[in-house]
Amino acid sequence: MRSEHKQEMKLRRRNIALTVAYDGTNYNGFQWQSPPRVAVQNILEERLEKIFGDKIELAAAGRTDAGVHAFGQVVNFFTDGRIDVERIPLAASSILPSDIVVREAREVDKYFSALHSAKSKIYLYRILRGSASNPLVNRFAWHIFRPLDVEAMRKALTLLIGTKDYSSFKAAGGAPNMNPVRTIYAAEIFNENLFSGDILTIKIHASGFLYHMARNITAGIVAVGRQRLSVDEFQKIIDARDRSLLPATAPAQGLCLQEVFY
Amino acid sequence: MRSEHKQEMKLRRRNIALTVAYDGTNYNGFQWQSPPRVAVQNILEERLEKIFGDKIELAAAGRTDAGVHAFGQVVNFFTDGRIDVERIPLAASSILPSDIVVREAREVDKYFSALHSAKSKIYLYRILRGSASNPLVNRFAWHIFRPLDVEAMRKALTLLIGTKDYSSFKAAGGAPNMNPVRTIYAAEIFNENLFSGDILTIKIHASGFLYHMARNITAGIVAVGRQRLSVDEFQKIIDARDRSLLPATAPAQGLCLQEVFY
Repeated sequence: MRSEHKQEMKLRRRNIALTVAYDGTNYNGFQWQSPPRVAVQNILEERLEKIFGDKIELAAAGRTDAGVHAFGQVVNFFTDGRIDVERIPLAASSILPSDIVVREAREVDKYFSALHSAKSKIYLYRILRGSASNPLVNRFAWHIFRPLDVEAMRKALTLLIGTKDYSSFKAAGGAPNMNPVRTIYAAEIFNENLFSGDILTIKIHASGFLYHMARNITAGIVAVGRQRLSVDEFQKIIDARDRSLLPATAPAQGLCLQEVFY
Repeated sequence: MRSEHKQEMKLRRRNIALTVAYDGTNYNGFQWQSPPRVAVQNILEERLEKIFGDKIELAAAGRTDAGVHAFGQVVNFFTDGRIDVERIPLAASSILPSDIVVREAREVDKYFSALHSAKSKIYLYRILRGSASNPLVNRFAWHIFRPLDVEAMRKALTLLIGTKDYSSFKAAGGAPNMNPVRTIYAAEIFNENLFSGDILTIKIHASGFLYHMARNITAGIVAVGRQRLSVDEFQKIIDARDRSLLPATAPAQGLCLQEVFY
């Protein structure tokens, strides 16, 4: 009974979706943490409650890890608060720290869930090349000193495309019972010049990502770039569905949840 | 006598020049400050002393203000320390915080001064456009919400080129006796896509810059972009040599000392 009542109350309230960008450097990931740990969700819920005047419980498209960034994280929540949706980004900017930004807000139908309605996501992983680090980008990139064979990396990335069992790229020791099949629609690599930094960016568009999958793919692709793995060996690793064949997970700070599609 | 002796000692020591990049967000500018204030120079001298084993006194090409960044700051110092110059960047990276990077080191002749030998400098000023801020670039850009007339800004910038008295762009209340004539070789504006941020970058290459000159030029150019000043009015402001005609200095965080030429 209580649960039905709660559900009905929820159906009367507005369902608000936000597109959120953040610099994850100073947070213990996106997902809510018990204090004194602070996750992006802690800050967002606490500050949004000031705008909406009621208890805010967010659902999010992606549970980004500590140190991972987002340009296009999507969250939703139900509220009785009456603020116009167009006013939310500006209202949020006045009470959020500068490393968390509400880029857009919209009212969505009652059945929309930022988590469950997501059709696909794009993650970017940025690598800073060259002998010197760059303090204008090093919060957002993995600095790799040694030369990388970009053409081999590109070939290895194309081998990932399709609907496959990506068990080789799941978190070491991660949830064993999760279905490891996903679809990768695109896996590309390209150059960017960001604040005079020579950046190599890996872009992966997939139906979904296993925990640590984007960072583990990056670890494997970088091993190919450093000629520690051949492209054929990378194919064998995909086929083996065995996480233990890959090198250690790439560092968090290079990863960015770029876009979520619904 | 003491001064001559000191000078002779200095001539026997090696003169080392470093190219230094930094994220100025957390520092009280470049120039040394009395504790508890911390400038980039405090950190550099203190850490370089550990590498070289003697007292380090830096001279720098540009005294960037609090919050201003650098990709290509140049410093030099005399030392008896015997570390190979090629090893300095790596040795520095292990003892400097991640927001200060020694990009290059070289031994220079005894008469080289990072400050006095500089022939010209390039400063960049970055503006983030659009309604939403972007936490992946907002440490390094001035966020301007309202539309900007980029063609008018470009025209106004070309009016700055030449050898002129730039008194209209000096610091309000700044040193009145300084010669205000400089040569601006190039003054351009272009678009950059940095971490999905729509960035408008003003680039100024000049023989030298008066205190606050790059930020005051930006303030004037942005006033033109927002159609608060016409291009003709901007010309009149240049000609008037009167600082009081310009709007307030643009914020520090958009400015970056990009390159110094010798």
